[in-house]
Amino acid sequence: MSDAHAARRTRLRERCQASGSATALVTRPANVRYLTGAAPRGAVLLLGAAEDVLLCGAPPRGDSSEGRPDDTVRVHLLPKPAGDPAVAAADLVTAAGAESLAVEEHHLTVARYRALRSVAPRLRLADLGGAVEQLRVVKDEEEISCLRIGAEIADQALGELLESILVGRTERHLALELERRLVDHGADGPAFATSVATGPNSGRRGHLPTDRRVEEGDFLSVCLGAVYRGYRCEIGRTFVIGTSPADWQIELYDLVFAAQRAGRESLVPGAAYRAVDRAARHVLDSAGHGADLPALMGHGVGLEIDEDPQLAPAAMGKLDACVPVTVEPGVHLPGRGGVRIDDTLVVRPEADGGPELLTITTKELLAL
Amino acid sequence: MSDAHAARRTRLRERCQASGSATALVTRPANVRYLTGAAPRGAVLLLGAAEDVLLCGAPPRGDSSEGRPDDTVRVHLLPKPAGDPAVAAADLVTAAGAESLAVEEHHLTVARYRALRSVAPRLRLADLGGAVEQLRVVKDEEEISCLRIGAEIADQALGELLESILVGRTERHLALELERRLVDHGADGPAFATSVATGPNSGRRGHLPTDRRVEEGDFLSVCLGAVYRGYRCEIGRTFVIGTSPADWQIELYDLVFAAQRAGRESLVPGAAYRAVDRAARHVLDSAGHGADLPALMGHGVGLEIDEDPQLAPAAMGKLDACVPVTVEPGVHLPGRGGVRIDDTLVVRPEADGGPELLTITTKELLAL
Repeated sequence: MSDAHAARRTRLRERCQASGSATALVTRPANVRYLTGAAPRGAVLLLGAAEDVLLCGAPPRGDSSEGRPDDTVRVHLLPKPAGDPAVAAADLVTAAGAESLAVEEHHLTVARYRALRSVAPRLRLADLGGAVEQLRVVKDEEEISCLRIGAEIADQALGELLESILVGRTERHLALELERRLVDHGADGPAFATSVATGPNSGRRGHLPTDRRVEEGDFLSVCLGAVYRGYRCEIGRTFVIGTSPADWQIELYDLVFAAQRAGRESLVPGAAYRAVDRAARHVLDSAGHGADLPALMGHGVGLEIDEDPQLAPAAMGKLDACVPVTVEPGVHLPGRGGVRIDDTLVVRPEADGGPELLTITTKELLAL
Repeated sequence: MSDAHAARRTRLRERCQASGSATALVTRPANVRYLTGAAPRGAVLLLGAAEDVLLCGAPPRGDSSEGRPDDTVRVHLLPKPAGDPAVAAADLVTAAGAESLAVEEHHLTVARYRALRSVAPRLRLADLGGAVEQLRVVKDEEEISCLRIGAEIADQALGELLESILVGRTERHLALELERRLVDHGADGPAFATSVATGPNSGRRGHLPTDRRVEEGDFLSVCLGAVYRGYRCEIGRTFVIGTSPADWQIELYDLVFAAQRAGRESLVPGAAYRAVDRAARHVLDSAGHGADLPALMGHGVGLEIDEDPQLAPAAMGKLDACVPVTVEPGVHLPGRGGVRIDDTLVVRPEADGGPELLTITTKELLAL
């Protein structure tokens, strides 16, 4: 991966130079990891004209959860008591005679910004904006392979849960069991707080597990994901508990399934983000569920679970090949429950077989 | 709790007015929860001259993990698609004719700050600084009671683990089992990533669990905590695996125990933060472990696991009664392992019996 990280920094350096800054300070942890291979706690990356330096308050651990810094980056360990590595970076830059430094204004707090100003009053602070986030949108095959392994792990954890007895168990316990199974199968951890929603809670996006127990006749909706080498994927499924789903359950499930399929089928290179949202949303809207739909129908995944692009009505931009996204429509009927179906897919050209589905657990309505 | 939250906001309002701002915008989630009872995702609190408003992008869920907004606060739900609630707050303030607004510069990003500036160019933005964090340092009895329950839960989870067979199990599995037990006993979740460290990893602060298995003769150090109604506590213990600890293990354990006791005994109202640090650090330093000690010997706990005060060599300030802190010295010998002992205690006057120990699991060196 050394070459990949160095190549990413080269691309970023070119962007910075094009906008007039020879040096940049990267503070957002996922961006630091993307560019160096590691995100030790609190560490910042100084992208210099000559040399790139990872400034850390403590030695990098180099384990799978924080990653290992690339050989091509110099690791600079601050003496104790270590202050803010960003301030130390501003010192370095000034000593090297740089005139301007691009910073991540969307991540840096006003207080840290003022601290940089005060140690380096002559340094012009520019805005790096979302330059690193933009580089992160299109993944290379090594990144996609981490996502693919993460998705396999999530599929396995979910598959095992479905074989166990569910009635009578609480949402919290099912969520914890899923997280344990993720780790059993080799995940560094859950990609986000595992959501298990039963009965009237089912179908709610981001529902946090409660002490409600699974009952006969419930919808059960589950959303989980694994972190593998820093990469985070997501899968969501809805099941029905008991032998035969009610008519309203079948009808609602079929509707959400149709919406999700429409979203998946619209994942082609060149499709507008909002067109993917519209494809899924339109199906639910036409059936009268338009008023209370979630703000988006999907989003990018990678080193963070929710990254660009946003597949939402007002999103600007178009899909490229090799962009992994979720497609996750859902409908929740207050008091009754609902359905969510969520996959992680990678956008691929038609010639390569179209979108690559990473989360392969069946989307048939299973009665458990 | 309604009265308590309203009283906290009154105190904050007095501070703001004393420093020239009639209105304040609170964005840091733990601060929002402290002042309103709830921290719905992304919500901000506008402390107005007349009325206090919680601005949310989605309806508050009101469950135990995010809390329930107090009756004395008006909840303002932003229309969809909801932009940044902080920007909506700046709009409200300007419409109400305010001239200045204090913001949390240590939490607000530069980009959000610029967005406030651009919607309200005439509004003077002042710095609220750590005013809410300062209010949070001294806890009321209701807060302490949440911490006490959280500590009981952590003690129970740890106690059960000690009764199980440990040899051959991995750090990851033990950590997951502890987290499951925390939830079993009523925690909203773990207060932070549970740390389980065996053999050469033992004694490292914040060690993240690996696939290393517990072996005969190992030190095993464990650090965990429960969240209960938003409040987070911490307990850390070190054990030895097998029938009889080696001499170096007993010696190191006794030393860290003596340091931790010295720290605990120095917890009296009026003691300087740095004096508590020194009391514990001195014991380890005198035994030749000064070079590689952690940066602090303890810290405050509450709605966040690491809050003010910092019990560190350069910390300024003195302890008050009703301040819950950790005392957590440790020594790690590279390649061999080490010992950490960590308690959560509440500072109490001598007349009330001195420091109240919340985490009561034994600190004898247990051979498991």
